[in-house]
Amino acid sequence: MSIESLFYPKGVAVVGSASEGKIGWELIRKMLAGGYQNIFAVNPKAQGALDVPGYDAVTKIEQPVDMAVIVSPPSTVPNVLEDCGRAGVRAAVIITAGFSEVGNDAGEVEIRRVAEKHGVRFIGPNCAGLINTAHHLYPTLETHPPAGGVAVVAQSGAVGGVVTAWAQEFGLGISKFVSYGNGADMNEIDFLRYLTGDAETKVVALYIESASGGREFMRALRECAAHKPVVVIKAGRTQSGRRATLSHTGSLAGADAVYDAALRQCGAIRVHTIEEMFDLCKVFVHAPRLRGRRVAIVTNSGGPGVLAADWAEEVGLDVVEPGPATKEKLAEFLPAHCAFKNPIDLTVEGTEEGYRKTLLALADEYDALLALNIATPYLDSLALARGACDAAEQTDTPIVAAFLPHQIVAASVDYLQERGLPNFATGERAVAALAGVAAYEQKPGFSVSGVTKTWFLGEQERLPGEGQMLEPEAMAWLRENDIPTPEFRFAATQAEAVQGCREIGYPVVIKVVSPEILHKSDVGGVIVGIEDDRAAQDAFVRIQQAAEGKDFQGVVIYPLIRDAQEVLLGLSRDPQFGPVVAFGLGGIYTEVWRDVALRVAPVKRAEAEQMIREIKSFPLLEGVRGQAGRDLGALADVLVKFSQLPFRYPDIGEVDLNPVFLLTEGLVVGDVRVIRQNDT
Amino acid sequence: MSIESLFYPKGVAVVGSASEGKIGWELIRKMLAGGYQNIFAVNPKAQGALDVPGYDAVTKIEQPVDMAVIVSPPSTVPNVLEDCGRAGVRAAVIITAGFSEVGNDAGEVEIRRVAEKHGVRFIGPNCAGLINTAHHLYPTLETHPPAGGVAVVAQSGAVGGVVTAWAQEFGLGISKFVSYGNGADMNEIDFLRYLTGDAETKVVALYIESASGGREFMRALRECAAHKPVVVIKAGRTQSGRRATLSHTGSLAGADAVYDAALRQCGAIRVHTIEEMFDLCKVFVHAPRLRGRRVAIVTNSGGPGVLAADWAEEVGLDVVEPGPATKEKLAEFLPAHCAFKNPIDLTVEGTEEGYRKTLLALADEYDALLALNIATPYLDSLALARGACDAAEQTDTPIVAAFLPHQIVAASVDYLQERGLPNFATGERAVAALAGVAAYEQKPGFSVSGVTKTWFLGEQERLPGEGQMLEPEAMAWLRENDIPTPEFRFAATQAEAVQGCREIGYPVVIKVVSPEILHKSDVGGVIVGIEDDRAAQDAFVRIQQAAEGKDFQGVVIYPLIRDAQEVLLGLSRDPQFGPVVAFGLGGIYTEVWRDVALRVAPVKRAEAEQMIREIKSFPLLEGVRGQAGRDLGALADVLVKFSQLPFRYPDIGEVDLNPVFLLTEGLVVGDVRVIRQNDT
Repeated sequence: MSIESLFYPKGVAVVGSASEGKIGWELIRKMLAGGYQNIFAVNPKAQGALDVPGYDAVTKIEQPVDMAVIVSPPSTVPNVLEDCGRAGVRAAVIITAGFSEVGNDAGEVEIRRVAEKHGVRFIGPNCAGLINTAHHLYPTLETHPPAGGVAVVAQSGAVGGVVTAWAQEFGLGISKFVSYGNGADMNEIDFLRYLTGDAETKVVALYIESASGGREFMRALRECAAHKPVVVIKAGRTQSGRRATLSHTGSLAGADAVYDAALRQCGAIRVHTIEEMFDLCKVFVHAPRLRGRRVAIVTNSGGPGVLAADWAEEVGLDVVEPGPATKEKLAEFLPAHCAFKNPIDLTVEGTEEGYRKTLLALADEYDALLALNIATPYLDSLALARGACDAAEQTDTPIVAAFLPHQIVAASVDYLQERGLPNFATGERAVAALAGVAAYEQKPGFSVSGVTKTWFLGEQERLPGEGQMLEPEAMAWLRENDIPTPEFRFAATQAEAVQGCREIGYPVVIKVVSPEILHKSDVGGVIVGIEDDRAAQDAFVRIQQAAEGKDFQGVVIYPLIRDAQEVLLGLSRDPQFGPVVAFGLGGIYTEVWRDVALRVAPVKRAEAEQMIREIKSFPLLEGVRGQAGRDLGALADVLVKFSQLPFRYPDIGEVDLNPVFLLTEGLVVGDVRVIRQNDT
Repeated sequence: MSIESLFYPKGVAVVGSASEGKIGWELIRKMLAGGYQNIFAVNPKAQGALDVPGYDAVTKIEQPVDMAVIVSPPSTVPNVLEDCGRAGVRAAVIITAGFSEVGNDAGEVEIRRVAEKHGVRFIGPNCAGLINTAHHLYPTLETHPPAGGVAVVAQSGAVGGVVTAWAQEFGLGISKFVSYGNGADMNEIDFLRYLTGDAETKVVALYIESASGGREFMRALRECAAHKPVVVIKAGRTQSGRRATLSHTGSLAGADAVYDAALRQCGAIRVHTIEEMFDLCKVFVHAPRLRGRRVAIVTNSGGPGVLAADWAEEVGLDVVEPGPATKEKLAEFLPAHCAFKNPIDLTVEGTEEGYRKTLLALADEYDALLALNIATPYLDSLALARGACDAAEQTDTPIVAAFLPHQIVAASVDYLQERGLPNFATGERAVAALAGVAAYEQKPGFSVSGVTKTWFLGEQERLPGEGQMLEPEAMAWLRENDIPTPEFRFAATQAEAVQGCREIGYPVVIKVVSPEILHKSDVGGVIVGIEDDRAAQDAFVRIQQAAEGKDFQGVVIYPLIRDAQEVLLGLSRDPQFGPVVAFGLGGIYTEVWRDVALRVAPVKRAEAEQMIREIKSFPLLEGVRGQAGRDLGALADVLVKFSQLPFRYPDIGEVDLNPVFLLTEGLVVGDVRVIRQNDT
């Protein structure tokens, strides 16, 4: 398998100048320093370097060589790949820049063509290389981090470089690192798949700016996240969030919101800064999992303990007081002046034994513990570190440390690292990381929603009609698709309108029908609460006048529905992930509060229920202040059916059902707007 | 002035054992190392230390001594203070612990008494001491930070210690540091007042867990913030936020929300972590002020640039593209492959000159610039640092740096520090700090609202009546105080009710009047939309039945008000700050969204307007989707008057006006609930 040759090569050709100080030479030096020996320098002069033999072509190497690291000029890369192919190289790391990132798309197409011809898989071009600590393999100019359980996959070499440098400085163990640059061949999908089964990797940290694979990316991510935590930074949020749409749903489902939904549906954990990613990986790889959200803070000084407690509550942990049994245990060995609250303040007199015994006494009652030490130069922090580490070894309850300030506790931090107790720069960052893990552990089981390739197995159809779909037509179409619509009548004349109103039964609502009027209320095209024939005749005339010069086709008549909670259901299409479905309360709730639940469609029943419950306005649906609760079962059923429509009708661009009248029993659509995919 | 003796003493007595290794000895050693010479050791053995002479009493010192640092055992402190008083000492730093923090309140009262008798002002007990870098004065065990413009005032010694240690490690210049521990005498109020006029101090960093002075604290803080930025951490947020209240407003105005309002009204900047405080001080003390929110990011690698841009937008900065004129300037010297977007990516080939020229070309168009450098060991970061510093010297536009990863760029970071360009651990933290400064610069001019001591100059009165105030009584009281109430009638019998309805004019609303019914709607005590005498009779009977066994006194009749926007006005009383006033939309907007504007009362007109505009639901008041806008002028007038009520009626505990019907012209109170202060 090519990817095995990439991470576990038998021999590596470094192609490019091996003169001292050049990148090729530097790479050889760093690879040797990392402990990898089977290196061969390849360059026109057949120049070796640092005891590594030189050749003028990869084909000349007599020993097994299955991987090449290419740093020769861009114009030479196709020939180098030809050579590699002929020499049996299976995988290449193309560090050389000067391809699509500077507009040289043709060059990139060419290297892809050559590589494909020979079955050579590669990362790059314009990449920062890779690391496999288990194989002592470091074909990269980035810092060599210590070995450990975190795999870092980064589209951006610089972000990867920061993570590896911090890993070295702050002690985060790395299993594999790969920066795939332009991603002309292998990309995040390949690496997610590979890392899913990689025994060295306990946690995956992924940095992406885009995921060109769409649903294929989702499948790879979900599979990986089912096996181990995947922490994702998706950068370019704000820029990518801006695009023009016609529907309400379209504007709610900005590209970044869809990424958010997609990542969550896959069970990945999204963070927004490198520090967050780093902290979260640290706690995932070191500490046992959290059962719940109860955290106790053991400190030797009040202020920083309170700050950590504040932040813990802010990020959703429970800083509850210890129960009476635990307090009794604490009273056995703690002096009277230590408050038995939470944080538990051992004061400046806190000792190794004090930390150890206190942490252990708390371990049964809490889901996580923080050992906080604010050091002064006159304090034996190392003893406190020993106390915390000893406690951590004797319990399954996760313990993390925040020993600071860094300058004063450097020796203790090294000690904590050696014994595998994750240490954080501040108590606040420690509890934030714990909260991230708690959220991960307690997330609702992720479903196959939105990921399955062929959700709809029936025959695909086209939306009825052509051009803009009028309201009566759209309502009829919804009804065909089992979405509850109210009874309605279309009327082209005043007489038909009166007849229609009588058939529906007063009171009714009358709305204009015209392909040229999108916002019916805004032009006076909706009249509500018509009680009799006379009012119906009036309404018809007024609406006709309002539509003056606007291709007036008639009116549609509905029964007046009272005491409903209005909600919004929407469909739109994301360029990356395809159909997405939205649910919210509409009106101010979506416009001002952006209180919308979004998913890559389709959704299954459980996920539909979750969507309904996750909006902040959910209490309004349950019934507050004596109001009756709404029929949430019917709503979930409709959401599921609605989310499948784009798979039956691939020409759906966007659909707004806004409002939908949600009743104490059942629901009906109040208005509908359908935009065909080629309308946009 | 005593506080001058504290910060600029002529001579300092260190009282406590001066044997090697003891705290007294250590303090003398550190003070000498800091460069202060006029030290005298005082202890029973008259033992000197490190060339400092020893005495057995402060009174024996023959040279001028106006300050004492006390580390002798707690029981000796009163006598030591006696001695200090007699020797003409004006100020003391009582580091000794063992007072109120461990329940020894009597000991603390005693030292306060002795000090007061002699006019000796002190910080402590149980404090970490102080620093005045301008006077080379370091009577503290904390790290010695470099000199500079940031004053740190911390109730918690440990928090102060972290800040001074970080200041030393990451290069933040400190003017004064004071940790006042138990605050038995001097506290944050004294230091805010002192630092207001302190020429060495450009920025104040304040850490408090409580502000016992209430409005006096507000006055000191506002005065200081009017002269220089004050960055505040108020810890103990979540714990203190929990207290029982009777009214709706009371539950909205939790202690922490009131602190938030009070700090904002004083013009202080609240942050929540030590890192935020540190970053914000760094940019306040170094960089010129921001005129607006437009920020450009100059980077040498894509990924971290995008991350910084994302975060900048997240925290409210505008990462706009350069205009055509700037792009033209950039094109003159930048290679074609550098994207002329924002971030401006100079790529790994970015040079000293490239950074300098690019930053300068952008300076006119932007309000702040970030020079981001993601270094590798093979990059001359120092040159880039020079480029950024040179640019910063040639423009008034603030420039900040984020050179990382720290390990690789240590030399450049030192260089940036020397030249006064603030550097941050990541681009994200840099832009967050810039956003904090931008928010500070653009805050609406703070008013005297809520701070003036004697707002209400008339005669104070008692609320009418006794015990629970019934609705008609409360409405009449509001009307007396010029708060618009609807016309209403009280009716004790069915016949009176019909008469009252006729006088008001149908349609009307009828509500139960009973001191035992607080939630009238919940028991069926409110009937809306009564159209005629018959319905009025029915309603009276139904309400009477609903109030069965509940001390039914009658009903109150109001005209039915249609098409109003319901809002909520509230008053409550904070234990720390006294009367507070709240405004929101009521109902779900306050209950689910907590969308409430809160202020320490009273508020002036400008602040009332700001309260109205700051709620997120404000668009509803302006009129969305063709609805008419509401009479915001009348609303602001009423808010001002309402906020003054607790000063005229000091027995007001809590008042809810909920709902208030806000109309397109004017407003009227829909319901009122008054709780006397001794009712609670």
